[in-house]
Amino acid sequence: MKKVVIALGGNALQKANEPATAEAQQKVCEQTAEQLLAIIKAGYEIVLTHGNGPQVGNIVLQQQIADSERTPAMPFDTCGAMSQGMIGYWLQQAIDKTLVRVGIPKKAVSVVTQTVVDRNDPAFSNPTKPIGPFYSEEEARQIMQEKGYIFKEDAGRGWRRVVPSPKPVDIVEKDAIRDLVEAGHIVIAVGGGGIPVVRNADGTVEGVDAVIDKDLGAAKLAELLDADVLLILTAVEKVAINFRKPNQAELDDVTTDQMKQYMQEGHFAPGSMLPKVEAAVQFAESRPGRLAIITSLEKGFEALQGKAGTRITALR
Amino acid sequence: MKKVVIALGGNALQKANEPATAEAQQKVCEQTAEQLLAIIKAGYEIVLTHGNGPQVGNIVLQQQIADSERTPAMPFDTCGAMSQGMIGYWLQQAIDKTLVRVGIPKKAVSVVTQTVVDRNDPAFSNPTKPIGPFYSEEEARQIMQEKGYIFKEDAGRGWRRVVPSPKPVDIVEKDAIRDLVEAGHIVIAVGGGGIPVVRNADGTVEGVDAVIDKDLGAAKLAELLDADVLLILTAVEKVAINFRKPNQAELDDVTTDQMKQYMQEGHFAPGSMLPKVEAAVQFAESRPGRLAIITSLEKGFEALQGKAGTRITALR
Repeated sequence: MKKVVIALGGNALQKANEPATAEAQQKVCEQTAEQLLAIIKAGYEIVLTHGNGPQVGNIVLQQQIADSERTPAMPFDTCGAMSQGMIGYWLQQAIDKTLVRVGIPKKAVSVVTQTVVDRNDPAFSNPTKPIGPFYSEEEARQIMQEKGYIFKEDAGRGWRRVVPSPKPVDIVEKDAIRDLVEAGHIVIAVGGGGIPVVRNADGTVEGVDAVIDKDLGAAKLAELLDADVLLILTAVEKVAINFRKPNQAELDDVTTDQMKQYMQEGHFAPGSMLPKVEAAVQFAESRPGRLAIITSLEKGFEALQGKAGTRITALR
Repeated sequence: MKKVVIALGGNALQKANEPATAEAQQKVCEQTAEQLLAIIKAGYEIVLTHGNGPQVGNIVLQQQIADSERTPAMPFDTCGAMSQGMIGYWLQQAIDKTLVRVGIPKKAVSVVTQTVVDRNDPAFSNPTKPIGPFYSEEEARQIMQEKGYIFKEDAGRGWRRVVPSPKPVDIVEKDAIRDLVEAGHIVIAVGGGGIPVVRNADGTVEGVDAVIDKDLGAAKLAELLDADVLLILTAVEKVAINFRKPNQAELDDVTTDQMKQYMQEGHFAPGSMLPKVEAAVQFAESRPGRLAIITSLEKGFEALQGKAGTRITALR
């Protein structure tokens, strides 16, 4: 049976302009589960990964607002772990609901996942990802001095802490995830790209303040699990070149070489479509025969059948 | 190989009079992992369960303090899921550190776990477990009217919300936990007794505001996994009758019938030793040959060898 790693987009958890309550997000998770049903029914071995941007952002805010001796603010890696527990719970309950209703005797299960990054990744010397609340310049300078954090001015809205976004190099729980998926479970893992950790000289790992791109995290997991397909789900059905120009063109079947040229030509927006294309190319090139797909949640099943989405493979 | 479900006590995560920071709690988790090493080395199949009282208490406080439209306070079941992600991360990283240092090629992995309770459990009509912050009588009465919560006056310290503490009847992720432990992983599950859910008529589950006793949750898991031993770790080496009286006596090997008589005679403090003894008796009586042990973290391995702790079995 084919093994597919599915990277859910932010819209699989929270809809734009809808409240951030548990109730609202759990409802979106249930709609997502319904959309995934066709893929589950088809019998694929499935690992689901998901983002956590808005959710971990809120957890960091809550931690800062409530910071006190009794309830000390948790560091960013621990906030990521909290978001995995929260979103994992919502997703596994939502998927189980759908499965129970249609009588499929499978279950979804969430694994707390640590993603290893390289301590020497150049991202550590150029932090770019803003996290947490906005501060005045004075406050920011004080925190920088006290805690050694790095702050940047954010488009006139105030000062915000920035953390690095290093590349994932390994996933600590890969064997457990593989064993679960091979036993027939639908596994939810690498939430938010995984909790970022670095490996020490003695082989142990420890948390770092960093943000791992969720699609690159999913690609790394797909590679380590020897998955057949990496299915990246987002808000559009196909990747486009010349996006929002008169000559916009949607891509169907593309080679990784072609995609790399499009990337060089600047067709894809950084922080939006670009990391998805990078993740797709990385996975498709990691071993012959591997297929990466970028499409919408609604078209995911059709895309797996070759009937929708942008499908990326390396030249044989 | 013998399968053992270990219920860690609160002191395995946080020491009295020590700060509630991630750093301090992670250090305690590392000490706990060192204590568990002898059991791991002996080759048992291990599932670890843990409490979450102080941790989920702090999460609920933070949620209330920071409650706003942008960062709405999460309900209690979701707070439980957050605490499982957080504590699971700390424990699995701490255990992996110990394993890597001694060269044992195993890993610890945390599973987000839902525990099913009965909607008709009498506990739902008599909520007893206080959660969250203290309020004035006026505030409490207003929230009771608005949200339908139940508040009780708490020993002159103010009014506090109370939730029911129903008995666990099933664990949603039991098959995934069993598959992981049989594949050789050290599994962390049923944190805080599990996220409380009730089963609907159509077989789906949904979260409820409730607290499941962590030792009863561990006993239920041990029963469902067909474990050989339930090892409940706490602050004392042995269970005592006539506790803190001149005729105090520590128990070594005891039958469940004897334990039930001691319970009836009121030897064990409710909310402290009593639920541990109840959990031990429940597991030992669930099938012939099952052994329940109550002892300290330090004596866990000796107790498994029959050389320490209070060991409880049913009469054959």
